[in-house]
This record gives sequence, C-alpha cells and structure tokens, in this order.
Amino acid sequence: MSTRPRSIQDVQTPALLVDAAGLEYNLATMAAARPGPSLRPHVKAHKCTALALRQAAAGHRRFTCATLREVEGMAVAGLNEDLLLANEVVDARRLAAVQARVTLAVDSADTIAAAAAVGLREVVIDVNVGLPRCGCRPEDAGRLAEQARARGLSVRGVMGYEGHAVGIEDRDTRTRLTEEAMLLLMLAHAQVGGELISAGGTGTYDCNVWANEIQAGSYALMDTAYARLGLPFRQALSLLATVISVSSGYAVADCGLKALGMDHGNPSINDAQVLFCSDEHVTFVPAQPVRVGDRLRVWPAHIDPTIAYHERMHVVEGEQILEIWRVDLRGW
Amino acid sequence: MSTRPRSIQDVQTPALLVDAAGLEYNLATMAAARPGPSLRPHVKAHKCTALALRQAAAGHRRFTCATLREVEGMAVAGLNEDLLLANEVVDARRLAAVQARVTLAVDSADTIAAAAAVGLREVVIDVNVGLPRCGCRPEDAGRLAEQARARGLSVRGVMGYEGHAVGIEDRDTRTRLTEEAMLLLMLAHAQVGGELISAGGTGTYDCNVWANEIQAGSYALMDTAYARLGLPFRQALSLLATVISVSSGYAVADCGLKALGMDHGNPSINDAQVLFCSDEHVTFVPAQPVRVGDRLRVWPAHIDPTIAYHERMHVVEGEQILEIWRVDLRGW
Repeated sequence: MSTRPRSIQDVQTPALLVDAAGLEYNLATMAAARPGPSLRPHVKAHKCTALALRQAAAGHRRFTCATLREVEGMAVAGLNEDLLLANEVVDARRLAAVQARVTLAVDSADTIAAAAAVGLREVVIDVNVGLPRCGCRPEDAGRLAEQARARGLSVRGVMGYEGHAVGIEDRDTRTRLTEEAMLLLMLAHAQVGGELISAGGTGTYDCNVWANEIQAGSYALMDTAYARLGLPFRQALSLLATVISVSSGYAVADCGLKALGMDHGNPSINDAQVLFCSDEHVTFVPAQPVRVGDRLRVWPAHIDPTIAYHERMHVVEGEQILEIWRVDLRGW
Repeated sequence: MSTRPRSIQDVQTPALLVDAAGLEYNLATMAAARPGPSLRPHVKAHKCTALALRQAAAGHRRFTCATLREVEGMAVAGLNEDLLLANEVVDARRLAAVQARVTLAVDSADTIAAAAAVGLREVVIDVNVGLPRCGCRPEDAGRLAEQARARGLSVRGVMGYEGHAVGIEDRDTRTRLTEEAMLLLMLAHAQVGGELISAGGTGTYDCNVWANEIQAGSYALMDTAYARLGLPFRQALSLLATVISVSSGYAVADCGLKALGMDHGNPSINDAQVLFCSDEHVTFVPAQPVRVGDRLRVWPAHIDPTIAYHERMHVVEGEQILEIWRVDLRGW
C-alpha cells in the first residue's frame, strides 16, 4: 500500500484487526493478576514486537520465545533483558550472536552440549509434566542440571508446560491437572534449584499457583477456543473479510484457511453459521441477508497459527486504524 | 542466511524441500496428459513464480490465480500472457495496474460492476456446479454474460470448480460427480458462449473430459491427501525437520502446525506414527529408535496452506541443494 489506510474501509481484505481497547483491557487485567516478572509473556502467540512493547509497558520485561527468529527479533527490538527460548535447539549457533540475555531450555545431554558448544551461559531444565512433548522425566532433572553445571552453564531453574491442562474447559479438572503437573515440576525443582519455576499458559494463569512465572501468550488477543474457558480476557483479534458472493441460503467471504490456523477448527462469524473454509474462502449461512461488498468480522479459533500467516495487524478503534503493526517474528 | 547452503545438512529446520526429480516427473506427466493450454496451472498451490516458470517451460503459458497478489506477482515475473483470477473481487483497482492479460471471474451484477468500474476487459462467468461456494446458478449464467457484455466486457467463457469431487478417493464416484458438475457447466456455457470452459483440479485432471482447460495446482508437488487418489504424480514436497527431544516411546521434531496446513489433518512421517502437532513441534512414535539431532522428512497433508507459511523452498537432489526458490506470492 502506498498510503497508509486511515479507516478499515480502505483496508484490503482479509486483514487482521486488533481491537485496541480489548488489547489494553487484557494487558491490564493480566498485569493486575500477574504483575511484572510473575508473567513471562510468550511472543509465539502474536509474533509481533510492537505488541511485545505494549506488554513491556504493562510491566513485563521478561519474555518467552519458541523459535530462534523470535529471540533474534526481540533482541533487535530492544526487548533483550531476559529472553527464555522455551524450546530445545540442536544447533544454537545463531543464539550466540544475539545481543540479549538468553536462557535456553534443555532436556538432554545433547541439548546441553548444544548450549555449551556455542558459549551460551544460562539454561533451564525442561521437565515433562504430562504433555507428551519435550522435557525430561522429573527424576532425571537433577542429573541433567549437574551435567549442565559441569559444562559451565548456569542453571536458572526449571520449566514444565502443562499443555494437556491449559485448554480444558472445566475449571476444576483444569486446576486438578495443573496441580498434578506442578507437583512433578516442584519435585524436579527440588533437585535442580535455581530462581525460575516457569510454566503455564493463558488457561492456567491464575490456577497455577506453583510456578513463579507464567508463560501466557494468547491472553493478549484471545481466540474462540480459549474464549470457552470463561477467562476474564476479551477476544481482541478478528479478521476483516469482504462478502464476495451471495447465493440462496449461504454467502462467501474472502477469508480462507490460508488466513486462519485451522487446527482448532473453523472460525466463527457473529450471527452466522460457518459451513467450511477453502483456501481463500469461508462459506457461511448468515442469520440476516448479506450483500456482496459487505464487510464482516471473522473470529479465529486459534490465534497463533492465524497470525503467523499475516504480514501485519491493524490496531483499530471502531473503524479507525490507529496503528499498523508488522508481524515481524514470523518464520524460523 | 549469509551464505547459501549447499547441502540440506546446512539448512535451518523446519525447511521445505522440493524433490527436483519428482517435480520434473510430475510436470512432464501432466504436460503429456494435458499439453499446453489444456492445462491452466493454479499457482495458489505453490505461490512461487520460480515453479510457475517451470510449468511455463513445460508448455503451459496460461495460469490460474486465487488472489490479487498472485496476479501481480506473476505479471512481475513475466508470466503475464494470460492470467485468470478464478475468484470474485469486489475492489478490482489493483488489477487495473497489472501489466498482463487478466481475466476475472464474476458471478453477480456486483462483481461485473467491479470489473467494469476499473476498465478490465475480460471476464469469465463463474458457475456453481455443486460446491457451495462462489458461482452463479447455471440458469443465470447467460443473463450475467449479457450484463457483462452490456458493460463493455468481453466474456471469454465459463468456469466452474467441481471442488466437491476432486478429493474423492473412489475414482468411479469422482468421475460420476465430475460428469454431473460438468453437465451443469456445459449448460451454462451453451448460454454464455466463449472459448473457455475452465474447471477441474488435480483429482479430476483426466476424468474431466468436458472442460477445455484444467485448473490443477497440487499435481506439481502433491501431498498425502491427494496421494490417496492413486494419481500418477509423486509426492515431491516434504518438510525437513530435526529431532530435538527423545523420550521413552516417542520423539519430538521441530516442525509444527505453524509450518504445516492442518485442515487435512496431521502430516505423515515415514516409519513412524504421528501423534499430534503443536505450534513448533510434531510428536511421533518412530518404528526404529531416533536420536536428538537426527533429521527426517515430514510429509504435509495439504501443500497449499503449508507452503503459504514458508519464505522459501529448497530444490534438492538427494542431499544437495540445487536452487532456493522464494515463495513470492504469499499474502493478499
């Protein structure tokens, strides 16, 4: 675009819209519940340093990253005070060049070796607390911490993501699974030591009372999957789409599965039933008639893979575009 | 990357790999079955002008696009002889600036008006042949063609995508549904006239004997969903991933749902069972033990939304990287 659009009416669709008030509400609500370093916002959810700067302004100076590029981009944006790469890396050479305090998750002798090989200084021991993904067995955490220290690494503590719990709608079940997971993490921490007990996500930001920092990301913008949990955060991210075709009984808008993460299912449209998505289309049954050229909001089921498809987000107040943010941490 | 990697061993994962021999085989096989203008390759599948240039070299000079950016990028790459934007557009201003022969799909008075308003010259009437998406009713096609001609537009013919048929595994059922759909399209064409009867996809490239050009895209690289149809094309696109964590009973590689379109389900890994994908991980059960640092190929279930996540594709012959292609038609 040659000139910056001032109104969403001038934006090419599909386009990501961030509701400025909703975002600010979410940031303030989380900062009140989890002030300062008790939240380590996960940038994987939004992949946007402009949004991370807002989180920093809300008091959080430590961040969680999932990829090397997220770490690099955060450092370039000056958000380099304390970056945790909460993921295992076999080739850590790129981290050695990052101008930031970087702490790397390790869960094996190999990943400890990868960290030591490139002169990284700090690690956390990643512990499997129930999600079958990365992380060592709790009973192996102490041994790995010793290995890391023997390689000259400072072990800042433990992390363990209760990803099998964060999305469960029933709060009691979610809380119980979180407790079981965190007892494993505390067991590991007792062997490992260190200042950090890092865990959690948006779904467990308040019921996880064991971790001393929560790696929540989705809370800032939310999505329809997390909305079902009854959390005090507002859906602040939508996709603006244009109706391009109207037939008897259904209509089609120009927002398809290349503009949406589909792993949590179809998106939602207010006052409409979504039938299916194609590459560049969503077919839906509107409750009230729509016309070609009408614009509507599509609510993604999962924001993380949705945002990763987009180059930019438009921060809006009603129809007015306040800012345009680059999604600058995409890729790997 | 400062220096261009020569071997896939030097590539950062996750990384898209195009098997050069498989691609060439697929292009040659299709060009033999559907030579020259009887195929109008759909660039939405790969979003890569370097690959489109190979399709042009195989004899296809007319292309199908799904987005304004695809049209713009193809024109910039010099592949501007005959571009069909097989999608409805409400605001066609950007097309007016494209240096190419552009034909636009229309299915309503509004989209005809949008084409005429910016001085486009050529359209096709998009006909609904059974997939509940865009396209007018067959019986309305003639009337719309008259409207378009009255607005000074040249109507080149009809298009109608049998998207409800292309993915059906049973060939007889696929053929029958295609025939039913194409009878509707021929009905529309009888009213509309024009040189083009444009339809089809990879799944119906040979059983659709009614259309005079087939809009196939996936055939060039294929995916696990299309592989089930028993077509004579090879899976030529994989994701290179690195094992980053090994636990008792499963392992994790660094290729997750932000590197994969998930609308057709989980990807596949040879000699392994894929359990699930997270944002940056795939958890799988390998038949043989794997080690941290091992590299493996992940086969996407649906290439179109997979490629749209990536900046580049590595064209390989075994371990050797022959070329690196930009995925330059991403976005909108």
